Amino acid sequence: MEPIDLDGLRAAVVKQGGVVRQLKKDGATQEEVTAAVKKLQELKAQLEAEVKKQEPEETFDKATFDDVLLQKMFVVPSFEIYGGVAGLYDFGPITCSLKSNFINLWKQHFILEEDMLEVECTNLTPYCALKTSGHVDKFTDLMVKDSKTGECYRADKLLEAKMDELLKDVTLTSDQRLELEHIRIQADAYSADELDALFAKYGVVALATGNPLTHPFPFNLMFGTQIGPEGTMQGFLRPETAQGMFMNFRRLLNFNGRKFPFAAAQVGTGFRNEISPRAGLLRVREFPMAEIEHFCNPSDKRHPKFASVAHLVLPLFSRSHQQGDGKLLTMTLGEAVAAGIVNNETLGYFMARTYLFLKRVGIDPEKMRFRQHLLTEMAHYASDCWDCEIKLSYGWTECVGIADRACFDLKMHSDATKVEMTASVKHDVPIEKNVLAPTFNSRAIGVAFKKEQAIVKDYLKTLGEEQPEECQKLADSLAATGSAEIGPCANGAKYTITPEMVTFKPTVLKIHEEKFIPSVVEPSFGVGRLIYSILEHAFYVREGEEKRNVMAFKPTVAAFKCSVMPINNSEQFTPIVDRIGASLRSYALAFKTDASSASIGRRYARADEIGIPFAVTIDFETVDEKSELFNTVTLRERDSMKQVRLPIEDVAVVVNDIVKERTVWEDLLEKYPQVSVKEE
Amino acid sequence: MEPIDLDGLRAAVVKQGGVVRQLKKDGATQEEVTAAVKKLQELKAQLEAEVKKQEPEETFDKATFDDVLLQKMFVVPSFEIYGGVAGLYDFGPITCSLKSNFINLWKQHFILEEDMLEVECTNLTPYCALKTSGHVDKFTDLMVKDSKTGECYRADKLLEAKMDELLKDVTLTSDQRLELEHIRIQADAYSADELDALFAKYGVVALATGNPLTHPFPFNLMFGTQIGPEGTMQGFLRPETAQGMFMNFRRLLNFNGRKFPFAAAQVGTGFRNEISPRAGLLRVREFPMAEIEHFCNPSDKRHPKFASVAHLVLPLFSRSHQQGDGKLLTMTLGEAVAAGIVNNETLGYFMARTYLFLKRVGIDPEKMRFRQHLLTEMAHYASDCWDCEIKLSYGWTECVGIADRACFDLKMHSDATKVEMTASVKHDVPIEKNVLAPTFNSRAIGVAFKKEQAIVKDYLKTLGEEQPEECQKLADSLAATGSAEIGPCANGAKYTITPEMVTFKPTVLKIHEEKFIPSVVEPSFGVGRLIYSILEHAFYVREGEEKRNVMAFKPTVAAFKCSVMPINNSEQFTPIVDRIGASLRSYALAFKTDASSASIGRRYARADEIGIPFAVTIDFETVDEKSELFNTVTLRERDSMKQVRLPIEDVAVVVNDIVKERTVWEDLLEKYPQVSVKEE
Repeated sequence: MEPIDLDGLRAAVVKQGGVVRQLKKDGATQEEVTAAVKKLQELKAQLEAEVKKQEPEETFDKATFDDVLLQKMFVVPSFEIYGGVAGLYDFGPITCSLKSNFINLWKQHFILEEDMLEVECTNLTPYCALKTSGHVDKFTDLMVKDSKTGECYRADKLLEAKMDELLKDVTLTSDQRLELEHIRIQADAYSADELDALFAKYGVVALATGNPLTHPFPFNLMFGTQIGPEGTMQGFLRPETAQGMFMNFRRLLNFNGRKFPFAAAQVGTGFRNEISPRAGLLRVREFPMAEIEHFCNPSDKRHPKFASVAHLVLPLFSRSHQQGDGKLLTMTLGEAVAAGIVNNETLGYFMARTYLFLKRVGIDPEKMRFRQHLLTEMAHYASDCWDCEIKLSYGWTECVGIADRACFDLKMHSDATKVEMTASVKHDVPIEKNVLAPTFNSRAIGVAFKKEQAIVKDYLKTLGEEQPEECQKLADSLAATGSAEIGPCANGAKYTITPEMVTFKPTVLKIHEEKFIPSVVEPSFGVGRLIYSILEHAFYVREGEEKRNVMAFKPTVAAFKCSVMPINNSEQFTPIVDRIGASLRSYALAFKTDASSASIGRRYARADEIGIPFAVTIDFETVDEKSELFNTVTLRERDSMKQVRLPIEDVAVVVNDIVKERTVWEDLLEKYPQVSVKEE
Repeated sequence: MEPIDLDGLRAAVVKQGGVVRQLKKDGATQEEVTAAVKKLQELKAQLEAEVKKQEPEETFDKATFDDVLLQKMFVVPSFEIYGGVAGLYDFGPITCSLKSNFINLWKQHFILEEDMLEVECTNLTPYCALKTSGHVDKFTDLMVKDSKTGECYRADKLLEAKMDELLKDVTLTSDQRLELEHIRIQADAYSADELDALFAKYGVVALATGNPLTHPFPFNLMFGTQIGPEGTMQGFLRPETAQGMFMNFRRLLNFNGRKFPFAAAQVGTGFRNEISPRAGLLRVREFPMAEIEHFCNPSDKRHPKFASVAHLVLPLFSRSHQQGDGKLLTMTLGEAVAAGIVNNETLGYFMARTYLFLKRVGIDPEKMRFRQHLLTEMAHYASDCWDCEIKLSYGWTECVGIADRACFDLKMHSDATKVEMTASVKHDVPIEKNVLAPTFNSRAIGVAFKKEQAIVKDYLKTLGEEQPEECQKLADSLAATGSAEIGPCANGAKYTITPEMVTFKPTVLKIHEEKFIPSVVEPSFGVGRLIYSILEHAFYVREGEEKRNVMAFKPTVAAFKCSVMPINNSEQFTPIVDRIGASLRSYALAFKTDASSASIGRRYARADEIGIPFAVTIDFETVDEKSELFNTVTLRERDSMKQVRLPIEDVAVVVNDIVKERTVWEDLLEKYPQVSVKEE
């Protein structure tokens, strides 16, 4: 059956609304109005049902999920016994370990694979560095205050919330819907005045009280502090880890034997003094992050390994599709770069590597998209930027940003410190360039400029090489008018020259080495948000006699890799438990022994809830020398609940192989006899 | 030959000094005086030479070491291009990786081995938590300022520097030397007034200018900041990670299924706004640390695994030996605990585990000692504390502190928040306790106290159970005087009771479960200082035609495990380089390819300098199908410079086995043919 046309239904609702209003206006009978209203209600009900059918609601049980997070200590409010602090959360044992595994895998996937240079810089950052980077002046959010209570809100988030509220109206036409969605996506790109106008248009008021709001004004999001006892050195906690890598650019280039291009990477903490942290773990004041700065030649952004990912079809949500039909591109990455939709190979390569990494750690690829920044969102110096967004219960959420920042940061720091931050590449075949070479009349120029003649000569030589067209204009002007003003020269002064001082001749310059301020492609990972995404995507409720919560962590990131359970708490099993424990430890595999008196099914459920992928069960056969199953145990997989029987000495080996991604569970089903066990 | 008695020589110097003074005083001839002075000078020279001989100077080449640290980017000043910030340093690629490996190994050695519960708490900490913990009031250092320039100094460090200066005088007697050394060790335990007196006595002045100093005053070392946009929530950067674990005590106990004892652990950053950071990497303003809080029963601090370490002879520098002969204990740890020198098994267990861990990561055990805190150094609530000190070019340096903090922290937070922070243990065989059980005359007590009678009864019952001796005194007093005052009761009030209201009878109470605020044994690791210690202890200079710097990192912590070098940069070797690289990556082993045109010896030297333990060399035989060495490579070990020849497919396996501590290099010498290669 064809799905019913929603826009047709919406039009019918609108039309029937008009009928009702007209009847009332015309003073129709109560009966007539009631009948028309009833028809309107029916149409609305039909529309709502149809919307639900065509866009089924997420079945994600947020309340249960949040409860599990707290009860199993995945994430708890920091300083809870003191009432907590908004925007600060602690990780409990499972999430700590999950995060360690995530970071180690990230380092393998990016740093080890690409021979990146890792650095670790300080959180404390002096004013000067962040003044140059622009953070002192521009790292702000627009804030509004409740005009009566003074409560602070982030202006764009209030606008987003308003749009979400309005978008719930099923009678919106496609055009209306698109407009609201467009405003929602753009919310953080509006100026204070634009926000003011939109607040007025859509009636945005203080969330808690409904009071009117102040005009939006910028609030700097950096935490300030004083470094040293004198109170004279203003500092901040870093808002990102990137700056530390720019600081160290020269040393990193030297460390790399001046080989180019290369990438630096840093894993660390970032701080943002959020105005009013709500959305749980997504808007926090202190968060783990991991950033890469890939330094490359601004005129050659090819990537040697791009061919290995060109065939992938990533979920690309391009600028034009966001402003158009809202659909994803269907072309390969190679085609997208060739078509200029993705700006260059290096950017594309990191998008692909990011996609593969996120799949590897357990992000659902169906809930992932790369959204290109709109031109209005992008910094003036950036040439392209794609956010990897993940679909969560809060909606699509930016978790990784992959931006081509051009040479902006290095240039700003170089200008501020007068430290040269350049790299160079040598050309095997020299590049040829048409230039104008000056020939000087040393006497004329010497008489005119004396000690300053070298400055004038340098200026003209550089002009001829770097701006031959401007130089030609100068030559023409000299010939036509008999004199010309040049400068400002290196000393800041301007000089007037005459035709007898210099003549220019077209020449071909051979360029053997090119020196430049590198461009930077920056993949920036919000590790805290990704950890949260893993938690949400891993969570499901297993139906049965009683509902059971499961965290389907991939073995490679799971905190505990295995639980070890004797069938009961009899002492005869202790040596086996210890033996298995020792062999797991020898592979550095974290495990959890559960020798409690609870039923085995209950213990499986407890292990499932904290995401342990495998359970080893030791039973009477294991210790029965007469049994053919002597010295074997069962291994249960969490999601399929299937079990195999295998020798004790194989346990650590096979669990390790799966954790290290050298084999998968399905292979074990082939290799070992499957046993069928009913879990109560 | 017997070493010459230094004290005898010193006495001779002192005596001869007296002779010279006396001669001058007596108006002796110039000739006589000159002869006596000459003899004095000879004696002094002899003494100095003898001191040098008996206490040979460290051969550690600090200048070269510092140069390597900077040039190879092990550690560089943060924000160097802006002139740097005192006390802030960045880690370059090698040190980053070394630190990652260190932390991973720490987690294996402590968390995984002991099933500890890891948490990760925030750096930002609100005022309330640190007020309770005592840091707001007491986390201070005594500071003095140059009375003219205002430059700030840490008072104890000035005193230490002065003592070091005075201790260089070889003519000091043993007693004088002991006194100065005692002051030096105690430097950070003196009060402001005591420091003032010592400064006057020894003439301590401003280091840079020689100006007089202000009186010492306390300076709080925490970095302050504001949390939230309102500017109403004072916060700090945490000075230690410990508090986050106390905050989460209740949740951790629940996570552990209320099983007791248990330990929490946290790896993170600590911040101290050092007054005048000097000593390079040892006194920094932001530093990685790793802490364990082992929560245990205050009346039972045995440790189930103590027997496994009781036989070890640790380098224990006990309180009495510090104040006595300055020597280390020679007894086993088991004996030290039995003798009460180390307060309890749990403390001793963690000292032993720390010792084993530090050896494992490459700290020289000959340069390690556990120094017990003097009573004057220890917090009033602490029952014992041992610092693991490491001998560095800066002297003996505290790198790990292992303290029994009793129940101080939990009790303070519990009192401040009214949140109960207790644990309990069940006794299989109930403990019997002699108590006094009250029998009440309900009518008399009811008439006297009406609604408050329950409060009075509770008070008397509790008194009889918990303080039977006090209760007996009360009973005696009642009998003797006919009335007695009790209280303050639970409501804060006091009451007067009479003998007819209550009688007490001796009873035996059977205690099945004991509830208590746990004691905490806290091993606290200064990870930054330990990383620095590894760097210092790993460094040596290999003599030869030219001096070559070597970093002898243990394979398990080394940043790169292996370098891969084709004998020259011919393309025929590329497939082999790639093949070895892929197999190393499959074990997540970091490696460095050096296919430069430098000589192989030069490349070995480069690898040695950044501490790569193994080098694989691919030569012409490797690719020669006709050679019997086809598909084999050489593997060179950094420190012995020995090489073996082995099949390509074995390389990653054996390197991995050594890194994972499953085998050692010496085993490979048995297993594979050794090849002799001259390095230039």
